[in-house]
Amino acid sequence: MNMIRTILFGLFLCVASQVFAQHLASPDGNLELLFRLDNGIPTYQLAYKNKTVIATSRLGLEMEEASLTGGFLQKDVRNSSFDETWTPVWGEYASIRNQYNEMLVTLTQENEYKRVLLLRFRLFNDGLGFRYELPEQETINYLIVKDEYTEFNLTGNHKTFCIPGDYDTNEFAYTTAPLSEIKEVMEKRLCKKGYESKATSFTVQTPLMMKSSDGLYINIHEAALVDYSGMLLNVDDKDFRLSSHLTPDKLGKKGYLQLPCRTPWRTVIVSDDARDILASQLILNLNEPCRLEDTSWIKPQKFIGVWWEMFTGEGRTWAYSDYNKAKPGVTDYTAITPNGRHAANTAHVKEYIDFAAENGIDAVLVEGWNEGWEDWASYRKDRQFLFTKPYPDFDVEELHHYAASKGVRIIMHHETSANAADYERQLEKAFQYMVDNGYNSVKTGYVGYVIPRSEYHSSQWMNNHYIHVVERAAAYKIMVDSHEAVRPTGLCRTFPNWLAQESARGGEFESMGGNDPDHTTILPFTRLKGGPMDYTPGIFETRLSYYKGDKMKEQVGTTLVKQLALYLTMPSPIQMAADKPSNYRRFMDAFQFIKDVPVDWADSYYLEAEPGDYITVARKAKGREEWFIGAITDENARTAVIPFDYLPKGKKFIATIYEDGKDADWNANPQSYNIRRITVTNKSILKQRLAPGGGVAISLKEVTGKILNK
Amino acid sequence: MNMIRTILFGLFLCVASQVFAQHLASPDGNLELLFRLDNGIPTYQLAYKNKTVIATSRLGLEMEEASLTGGFLQKDVRNSSFDETWTPVWGEYASIRNQYNEMLVTLTQENEYKRVLLLRFRLFNDGLGFRYELPEQETINYLIVKDEYTEFNLTGNHKTFCIPGDYDTNEFAYTTAPLSEIKEVMEKRLCKKGYESKATSFTVQTPLMMKSSDGLYINIHEAALVDYSGMLLNVDDKDFRLSSHLTPDKLGKKGYLQLPCRTPWRTVIVSDDARDILASQLILNLNEPCRLEDTSWIKPQKFIGVWWEMFTGEGRTWAYSDYNKAKPGVTDYTAITPNGRHAANTAHVKEYIDFAAENGIDAVLVEGWNEGWEDWASYRKDRQFLFTKPYPDFDVEELHHYAASKGVRIIMHHETSANAADYERQLEKAFQYMVDNGYNSVKTGYVGYVIPRSEYHSSQWMNNHYIHVVERAAAYKIMVDSHEAVRPTGLCRTFPNWLAQESARGGEFESMGGNDPDHTTILPFTRLKGGPMDYTPGIFETRLSYYKGDKMKEQVGTTLVKQLALYLTMPSPIQMAADKPSNYRRFMDAFQFIKDVPVDWADSYYLEAEPGDYITVARKAKGREEWFIGAITDENARTAVIPFDYLPKGKKFIATIYEDGKDADWNANPQSYNIRRITVTNKSILKQRLAPGGGVAISLKEVTGKILNK
Repeated sequence: MNMIRTILFGLFLCVASQVFAQHLASPDGNLELLFRLDNGIPTYQLAYKNKTVIATSRLGLEMEEASLTGGFLQKDVRNSSFDETWTPVWGEYASIRNQYNEMLVTLTQENEYKRVLLLRFRLFNDGLGFRYELPEQETINYLIVKDEYTEFNLTGNHKTFCIPGDYDTNEFAYTTAPLSEIKEVMEKRLCKKGYESKATSFTVQTPLMMKSSDGLYINIHEAALVDYSGMLLNVDDKDFRLSSHLTPDKLGKKGYLQLPCRTPWRTVIVSDDARDILASQLILNLNEPCRLEDTSWIKPQKFIGVWWEMFTGEGRTWAYSDYNKAKPGVTDYTAITPNGRHAANTAHVKEYIDFAAENGIDAVLVEGWNEGWEDWASYRKDRQFLFTKPYPDFDVEELHHYAASKGVRIIMHHETSANAADYERQLEKAFQYMVDNGYNSVKTGYVGYVIPRSEYHSSQWMNNHYIHVVERAAAYKIMVDSHEAVRPTGLCRTFPNWLAQESARGGEFESMGGNDPDHTTILPFTRLKGGPMDYTPGIFETRLSYYKGDKMKEQVGTTLVKQLALYLTMPSPIQMAADKPSNYRRFMDAFQFIKDVPVDWADSYYLEAEPGDYITVARKAKGREEWFIGAITDENARTAVIPFDYLPKGKKFIATIYEDGKDADWNANPQSYNIRRITVTNKSILKQRLAPGGGVAISLKEVTGKILNK
Repeated sequence: MNMIRTILFGLFLCVASQVFAQHLASPDGNLELLFRLDNGIPTYQLAYKNKTVIATSRLGLEMEEASLTGGFLQKDVRNSSFDETWTPVWGEYASIRNQYNEMLVTLTQENEYKRVLLLRFRLFNDGLGFRYELPEQETINYLIVKDEYTEFNLTGNHKTFCIPGDYDTNEFAYTTAPLSEIKEVMEKRLCKKGYESKATSFTVQTPLMMKSSDGLYINIHEAALVDYSGMLLNVDDKDFRLSSHLTPDKLGKKGYLQLPCRTPWRTVIVSDDARDILASQLILNLNEPCRLEDTSWIKPQKFIGVWWEMFTGEGRTWAYSDYNKAKPGVTDYTAITPNGRHAANTAHVKEYIDFAAENGIDAVLVEGWNEGWEDWASYRKDRQFLFTKPYPDFDVEELHHYAASKGVRIIMHHETSANAADYERQLEKAFQYMVDNGYNSVKTGYVGYVIPRSEYHSSQWMNNHYIHVVERAAAYKIMVDSHEAVRPTGLCRTFPNWLAQESARGGEFESMGGNDPDHTTILPFTRLKGGPMDYTPGIFETRLSYYKGDKMKEQVGTTLVKQLALYLTMPSPIQMAADKPSNYRRFMDAFQFIKDVPVDWADSYYLEAEPGDYITVARKAKGREEWFIGAITDENARTAVIPFDYLPKGKKFIATIYEDGKDADWNANPQSYNIRRITVTNKSILKQRLAPGGGVAISLKEVTGKILNK
């Protein structure tokens, strides 16, 4: 199906010891890479339209057994070119072009061991990917990584959108500041989650988004994080140097390798147009093709869930009882007193199933269905949850049949309390239990410090764990939505049953300290470059009481309409309608948009974008002639200018516009909205006002005869 | 079936703050315990026949969250008595008497938290067991163990039989020296295994055997090591103070507890007769009763195995090929070149099955049957072995049918390379695979450093792992023989499918540096107090070439006859006949003893014993009127004086005596032996010469008519 054209450009053998400079250009010629050996030390530079993006930066790996940081001779350079269009199982585009020029540099050390290091550079029109490769060789086999010395030397004090580097979590509020000031600002914004493990030096997390004073948008991340530690970036905020900071395990080891092996790709996406950063498919392109033979069972989906009630101050609980010493597998849960506030009970779940069935929602997530929630003791406890033991008030069989009769799926929840060892212990039986009871999707959770106790959420063993879970899930035809795992690096291309991850500060934080109005204008430039996020949009009731009680009243950082627009600006093949059915019933006309909006797309058009300020995107539904538009703004009102030139020519479309009310304001009047309809063609341009913290959501259907006027 | 008599002696409430001294005596009055609070610090003393065994020694637990080492008031003392006779599934005795007087002391701290610590002492006729218990209480729930302060203060410079304290292995040669000299001697005797993790201070391993200058034999160990770290002993060799040294994890944490909880029992077995130490069932008595409802499937057994060929210099391998990069699950083993020396091939295993069938041996152990041996990379590699993937030359199905047709079982081998995380990942499928292919016993192996990398072989997580494996094995009716695990603490009472462990320097070391002639006169006083050992006796060919090649010629440290006697002096429900069939065929008259000797006993009689010097034991077979005697000596020749008064009165028995030849010597002439028969009654006394490094093995059958004379 895919058209593959691979052309071997040339082969240059360079056996002399002089300094060589190797050039590589992107297919469109806008990007240029320069590779040089400086006194035996490998370096690279990157330019975009003749502006330096990355100044001369060193490369190298330091192993306990071998230093691969210098003393190199350049032995071989092979240039090639690649152009392929591939079809993702789901996503923003029906097909994705993977076009790059490649340079593979073979380096050999001049000492007795003749150790060989390969550097593979791929230059796309939208950025650079490169990785280290270690082929089989005589004098080394197993290696323990001491450090990776990959530099990204910047040209100035860029405006930076970042969260602090942490080995265990990514759930922080974003800091927007010049690089020289982020440290100070960031520390004030740290949102405690309870299991932070701040990096041992001044670091930031990737994907890191920056904007230079000369108008370049630069995004640094990694692709295909497999069998390696997650990368943070050390920050030198005097000289504006960034460098790789690998997540160690708790013994201080940064990775365990066996030759042949390769690192993940280090990526730099760059453009002078912010929309290109959002549209970039570079990270996916650098991942391996789909490894599953049959993907017919993978279904993008919308879901509601027994979840938000636990966050909104009404006292609903994950746990069946208040007896905090109840132990899964030991306690007789049928004999202890229920607390009467357990959310995941059969009758209540049926109400959600009914609502889903009535409104065309595919699935219902049920959290708190299984034994173990009474005595949450992350890290302390070798056994926390049982994944095959429902609470006595949750009738798995009855709900299976009830949901099936209504055409609704239930999404299983596997909260592991980050005890990955115990999860692996139970994994096969847990998945078999899902299959036996009609489940085909699981939300996994990793809240808390990790067991095995040697590991962090982003250390190598855990990165392998997440993939192991996804691979085993595929064997049972189960889709995965993982929360609190390492932030993604495009592995959903290889394992498309990995529908989404959390791995950032999601909608739940509206009830735990709040999300700033600009938060979702940054996430698509950062976290989402790795893959879809289960952000849980759709919060209509924007006045919240803190989930721990009612001491702290929270205000959601958006208007109601912006919650609708998030279904477009935060694309994901699995989208929650996160609010309670009772709140949706109060606003059924607005809820119509959530019912209508797809979660899988044939095409996407980024119309306006500036990180931290605004995003406007139009998308065509996959498999039907419908288009949807979402636009959001930060705390400032703005007028979105929305063209329709992506629509087919010569046709008319009804645009149903869900817009902020004239007096709408995320803080003062978030629930003010208006729904209106207009007719557009591909020549129309809509100027649409967005309220402070607001947005707009638009659905477009072709006029096929009689036009209904409201 | 069991007779239980529990009598509550009394209840004393002591609420005042004065110093109380509480006495407790053993049922026979020989042992006396004194418990005292010294300025709020709990202490104990132990005396045997008015000789001090343990001088005043402190007790206490230091937690990260709470110090439970002092500031105590004695609140409550409850004395009780217990006398029960229970029936083990297998062992040295058909029934075991569990008789003790108990004192439960409740201590409360005088501060605002009123923390409660319970000390439970059990005084048997053969020693003391005590443990800490933490009941549920208001101000603490989860605790991380910083240290345990349990002292064993000795009265002098005892003669000590010990191995160094190590967190990962017990496979050391024994040191015999006064306590003040063991450090120096021990360091010279350390036998490198490749994954030692020496304790951070001067420690020795338990069970620790000592003999005082006034003739007391003292053994210190622990019983029922469950959900806690394994204990070493800190040694103060100036003041002769021993104290608990818990195995930390690699983060330095010594345990993770949740209330209510309890420590393992700390045990002191004591007598003025060394034979009582060997006969003591105190460790088993302190363990919980059998937890399995059905034990009918648990069968003591003898086995041979495709194993010793890999140690004896003929180049046989565990691995199928020499291709050291072969990776299980990735490499196509059917396509790579076999090395032609792979031991576990179908035809060769059939030869072992034939030999077992011909000689009444129950089972054949096959090591090296599965993918993963080519590239042994303990600790480095997240995936080492596949437990459901046989090598292409090992036909599981064919061998299943072949063995079954001959009435022989194959013992599965699960070498984990100490990657316990990966083993748990595969465990259920591995056991199901065993059941599907007719296996009912598994030898597990833990060679190398542990993954999870936070753990040592004796840290809490691993101790829980071994039990998890045994419990899951029981669910599949599988018996377990675990090698390189933590040394045992009597848990085979609770889980009788845990037939044996290695956890000491076994017979294999005859080919890796050798075992001293006194080695097996010490093990029954030390390692065996925790439970049976899979020592692998029966080596007839006593000249060995080192398994790594033929550079180093080894001499087994025993005569051939002593190898026979080990089946009596090293009792185990699973005993290997470790030598190759070809060697047994050269000595079939001697091999007759191995064919005859049972592995399960109705009764046992320790006739002579001195640690490091000699042991003589007689045992009655379970279920048949046959007796067997084994006697061994160290490097010195001796005359064993063997009474027969345990035989039924008025009957005659044929004693078949397998004795050292007149010129036998472990080093100079180990294969010299003689077999003779005599008639004995229960009044006979046999004076039997044992050669240097030699022994004697005797089988006794009642004369039931015609007596065959040789």
